[in-house]
Amino acid sequence: MSGFSSLGSVSSDKFAVNRVVIEDVTPRVDGGRFPAKRVRGDVVTVQADVFGDGHDAVAAMLRYRHRSARTWQKVPMEFVVNDRWRARFEVAELGRYQFTIEGWTDHFATWRNGIIKKHAAGVVTEADLEIGASLIEDGSRRASGQMAEMLAETAVVLRQSKASSADRVERAVAEDAWVAMRSFPDRSGATVHDIVYEIEVDRELAGFSAWYELFPRSWGESGEHGTLVDVADHLDYVADMGFDILYLPPIHPIGRTLRKGPNNTLSPGEDDPGVPWAIGGPEGGHTAIHPDLGTLEDFRKLLGRAGDRGIEIALDIAFQCSPDHPWVKEHPQWFRHRPDGSIQYAENPPKKYEDIYPLDFETSDREGLWQALRDVFAFWAGEGVSVFRVDNPHTKAFPFWEWVIADLKRDRPELIFLAEAFTRPKVMYRLAKAGFTQSYTYFAWRNTAWELREYMLELTQGEPAEYFRPNFWPNTPDILTEYLQSGGRGAFINRLVLAATLSSNYGIYGPAFELMEATPREMGSEEYLNSEKYQIRHWELDRPDSLQPIIAAVNRIRRQHPALQQTSDIHFHPTDNDMLLCYSKRSGDDLVLVIVNLDPHNTQAGWTNLDLTELGIDHSQPYQVHDLLVERRYLWQGAFNFVRLDPHVMPAHVFALRRRVRTEHDFDYFL
Amino acid sequence: MSGFSSLGSVSSDKFAVNRVVIEDVTPRVDGGRFPAKRVRGDVVTVQADVFGDGHDAVAAMLRYRHRSARTWQKVPMEFVVNDRWRARFEVAELGRYQFTIEGWTDHFATWRNGIIKKHAAGVVTEADLEIGASLIEDGSRRASGQMAEMLAETAVVLRQSKASSADRVERAVAEDAWVAMRSFPDRSGATVHDIVYEIEVDRELAGFSAWYELFPRSWGESGEHGTLVDVADHLDYVADMGFDILYLPPIHPIGRTLRKGPNNTLSPGEDDPGVPWAIGGPEGGHTAIHPDLGTLEDFRKLLGRAGDRGIEIALDIAFQCSPDHPWVKEHPQWFRHRPDGSIQYAENPPKKYEDIYPLDFETSDREGLWQALRDVFAFWAGEGVSVFRVDNPHTKAFPFWEWVIADLKRDRPELIFLAEAFTRPKVMYRLAKAGFTQSYTYFAWRNTAWELREYMLELTQGEPAEYFRPNFWPNTPDILTEYLQSGGRGAFINRLVLAATLSSNYGIYGPAFELMEATPREMGSEEYLNSEKYQIRHWELDRPDSLQPIIAAVNRIRRQHPALQQTSDIHFHPTDNDMLLCYSKRSGDDLVLVIVNLDPHNTQAGWTNLDLTELGIDHSQPYQVHDLLVERRYLWQGAFNFVRLDPHVMPAHVFALRRRVRTEHDFDYFL
Repeated sequence: MSGFSSLGSVSSDKFAVNRVVIEDVTPRVDGGRFPAKRVRGDVVTVQADVFGDGHDAVAAMLRYRHRSARTWQKVPMEFVVNDRWRARFEVAELGRYQFTIEGWTDHFATWRNGIIKKHAAGVVTEADLEIGASLIEDGSRRASGQMAEMLAETAVVLRQSKASSADRVERAVAEDAWVAMRSFPDRSGATVHDIVYEIEVDRELAGFSAWYELFPRSWGESGEHGTLVDVADHLDYVADMGFDILYLPPIHPIGRTLRKGPNNTLSPGEDDPGVPWAIGGPEGGHTAIHPDLGTLEDFRKLLGRAGDRGIEIALDIAFQCSPDHPWVKEHPQWFRHRPDGSIQYAENPPKKYEDIYPLDFETSDREGLWQALRDVFAFWAGEGVSVFRVDNPHTKAFPFWEWVIADLKRDRPELIFLAEAFTRPKVMYRLAKAGFTQSYTYFAWRNTAWELREYMLELTQGEPAEYFRPNFWPNTPDILTEYLQSGGRGAFINRLVLAATLSSNYGIYGPAFELMEATPREMGSEEYLNSEKYQIRHWELDRPDSLQPIIAAVNRIRRQHPALQQTSDIHFHPTDNDMLLCYSKRSGDDLVLVIVNLDPHNTQAGWTNLDLTELGIDHSQPYQVHDLLVERRYLWQGAFNFVRLDPHVMPAHVFALRRRVRTEHDFDYFL
Repeated sequence: MSGFSSLGSVSSDKFAVNRVVIEDVTPRVDGGRFPAKRVRGDVVTVQADVFGDGHDAVAAMLRYRHRSARTWQKVPMEFVVNDRWRARFEVAELGRYQFTIEGWTDHFATWRNGIIKKHAAGVVTEADLEIGASLIEDGSRRASGQMAEMLAETAVVLRQSKASSADRVERAVAEDAWVAMRSFPDRSGATVHDIVYEIEVDRELAGFSAWYELFPRSWGESGEHGTLVDVADHLDYVADMGFDILYLPPIHPIGRTLRKGPNNTLSPGEDDPGVPWAIGGPEGGHTAIHPDLGTLEDFRKLLGRAGDRGIEIALDIAFQCSPDHPWVKEHPQWFRHRPDGSIQYAENPPKKYEDIYPLDFETSDREGLWQALRDVFAFWAGEGVSVFRVDNPHTKAFPFWEWVIADLKRDRPELIFLAEAFTRPKVMYRLAKAGFTQSYTYFAWRNTAWELREYMLELTQGEPAEYFRPNFWPNTPDILTEYLQSGGRGAFINRLVLAATLSSNYGIYGPAFELMEATPREMGSEEYLNSEKYQIRHWELDRPDSLQPIIAAVNRIRRQHPALQQTSDIHFHPTDNDMLLCYSKRSGDDLVLVIVNLDPHNTQAGWTNLDLTELGIDHSQPYQVHDLLVERRYLWQGAFNFVRLDPHVMPAHVFALRRRVRTEHDFDYFL
């Protein structure tokens, strides 16, 4: 029976008195095995089925605390429907919260309901009143201060057999007595649900972020290897587009052994810079900075100047080694060895990746390896880095991630980890459960309206919404989709709008994105031709056709509209043209309606069929849709409205939706 | 972190080596808190998500045992799709089975996959072969007998550097080596899922039963109080209709204090027999037999004679007491007391039920009370009763039911408990989770096609299918539905056919049912006029319009068709007339198609739209539908077939569906 004793809500007392059942507590992930995720300031809605046998009233209470707190906070739960109860609490601090639920038979409420009905039927007896007096008297002993006094007096009134029954009942069911009895309930015999659920509370940035990825070495003066100083000098370019996070591929020394040349060739020239993910050389490993990029001091300055602009620097943590990495000699036991004593390089038979040594998570020195890897994060966190993009986490052991992220966040709850796993769905979900703050997704390959709707429903309507925070990237250095290769400017803009409005977390790899780099290495490949992964590129940032202004507009709209700062509250609306994807997002009063022409080549037109109930719009009243991308306003009415989107002009509407409200002028719109 | 440590599949070793994750194991109920239910001989299909990090192959194994067994049986799991794995095991014995899952990284399978690809690409090296030889050599040490020898020889062949690479690879990947390596896998570093799930295995009767309820006191010679001997004398009547279980309302002494008269009046005459559920008098309580019904010896004879006919006697266990019950004096602490010292009678304010004393499950003598109640079951089980219909279990504490049913079934796994709870859905489900074998349902009030489809989907497609066995009753002594009151003969027949073919467990309250008793006590009431609950009735069993022959036919069809002996494998097919409900059930090759005219007044006709894929029927071939109710056969083809059902003749088709198969005669049908 292992595992059973701690599940569910059975008392350890064999002949239990606790008659109340507590089931189906939400939010929960895998039955409570993993925490749900929220950001600071969120209000968590907890629900549970709570019921007892028979017809007695029940009451329930949410208990919660920050893990660091000694005492539990208590919130009375309210009945919703069908034995479901609800309570809310705010998560004001970073870190781990805990909650559970307590429920009990509420004998006073049962009596109170009964006496009201009996009084209405004129069948109240002295015995009935004495039962109530006794319950209230017990309550006065649990209560304190004025409430205790008031309850004691109420009990006395109930026992005044010369007073009228009506007066005594009136006193017994009075609001103040009711509030006092609920404030000091009789919880003897309460069922305490014996799973404690957890909530991981992250910074707001974990829930709402715009990432920009660039290769520092391409940002030098024309012809020169770029440096961290060059990046710092271009921070305004990134800030002006409105990004929060500037993410740099690995900045460490790059191995020389079996270095790759341009376009992944095996015969590099003397000056070819190699692949940043082939980490480690004589100059150092995961805590060193590539000499051509600069020094640790340069890095600190970059962090500081970025911080001045509200930008955080995200580092790429790729746990693999070039053959020249110091660990290869210092810790050979962390690598698997071949029969000839050489270290086992990466393989995907029959392909060999002899320039990369994977770490062996089955090494007998797991403790040494795990702690060394933890110390890599800790080193950069010590330098002030709080955001990490983790390379291929799905090729490292799950228990390691669960341990290392929890271990690091214990003292640094502000850390954000983005999982770069493009693999099978259950593996991606498990990484998020194990602790990753955000996750790359399949967004890049979801192009049709059906695909996008289905994917968003999966991410937002099911259990994944509790722990998997999607981060949508239309491109990455590894992913130049066929859609972008062939779709031209319209494709880049519509993928930008989709990424930035479907998901509150998104990112682009630039300047390849804004300059619409679209040529693959070869037909059928998603690799860029002349990819920065293998060579230095120079970008003409001020090209007149750059998407920079549109990206800036999209990020500005996101900052102005809370509806776009969350992912789960999304609603898809039908259109009569499946090339037109239509969805609304809401946060409080803020309502944004997006319509995207998914066809990057042709103008598409059609009629919306808006769910007015969902939008909170009266069918008989006009409402204003304000296109924030092109600053144009329309008056619409009803569910059916005509739209026409030319991808060569602007393939999307991003509307702020303003409902009409009755004011003294009778024609104002709710802003 | 209470409750967490035992959830999921994390090793207790902090720096864990176990890289394999095991998630989403099915069947499970409330995360493993309760057992799933099966009947003896069932094959349980266990599924789980099993995956590791990276690209290494994984393997998984199901471990199961009867709880009484010392050792675990092991079954290799097979990969299904999307990281889902599956294995099956048969539950051959009654009682509780346990299972869990183990998964590990399969280094040999990984190597074998790799060497096949490398060989195809012509890049096999000596080192590659040595790695395989080493893995196989390790395998030979784990293996025994001939397999050990064969593996040892295989390792030797792999190391014969003078032999051709092709020969050595061929030997390494040979089927016998593969089978041997899989038979003796390297499970070091295996993840053992640390929830042990359970399966409660009941008798076949738990899954397939037809119940007949009668009031013994109405079965005497005209004018006399019927006895258990009278019931025994009428067993052939019940057996000829094909029922398995004869269920008797409480057979105990009936209280005199505040006894109810006919039609629930409060002024009974001297000879009025009272309500059988007002249990207890000077003659005894829950283990005594009403003197007017006979003696314990009579009861034993009834059991024996019923057994001769394949009928089991089900007793009604109603845990409540008349004021005259011996417990009231012997164990006053088991009842709640009012301030004046009197015992608290049942109430539903402002109504009072002064003839019934409920038991107080909050008594401080819970141990005494629970054991006394357990002993009531144990007494009758000792007399040979194995089936109990439990009255209003939802008004007794859930922990009591979980304890008492488990306690009783530990030594008597053949016991069957039917929960008579007509209350809120979550309460009904919880009782089933707590151990009830079968459950009454809302069937009586589900009349339209939409209601019936939705309800069947809820019961058969979700988690309830794992633990909630519905028992469908068109009527009970408490429930004469408006549909039966107004629908006439057609209504009785269609409700019979629906109950008996939708659910493998069903029952009727007779002879009220077969004699189509349909007059309510008053308009708007579901109570019978002159209900047997309050008075003795005499039934004209041989009335020519009795439904007895139709009931016999339905029960005969159920016994002949395995498709009707299970509930979950049901498929609804559209029709173009919503008064015609159409569904098929399947078990193995047996396929039954039912079409019911839900309109009890009018002939309804329409076209089926059968899901031929579901039925396994070729669109181009005719198939035979054989109406088992009226012994008529039709040749149908395709999805669309015309049906016409006159409720005044026969409101339903129950078809055996016979698909054409190619034989030497080329026109035979598969029977």
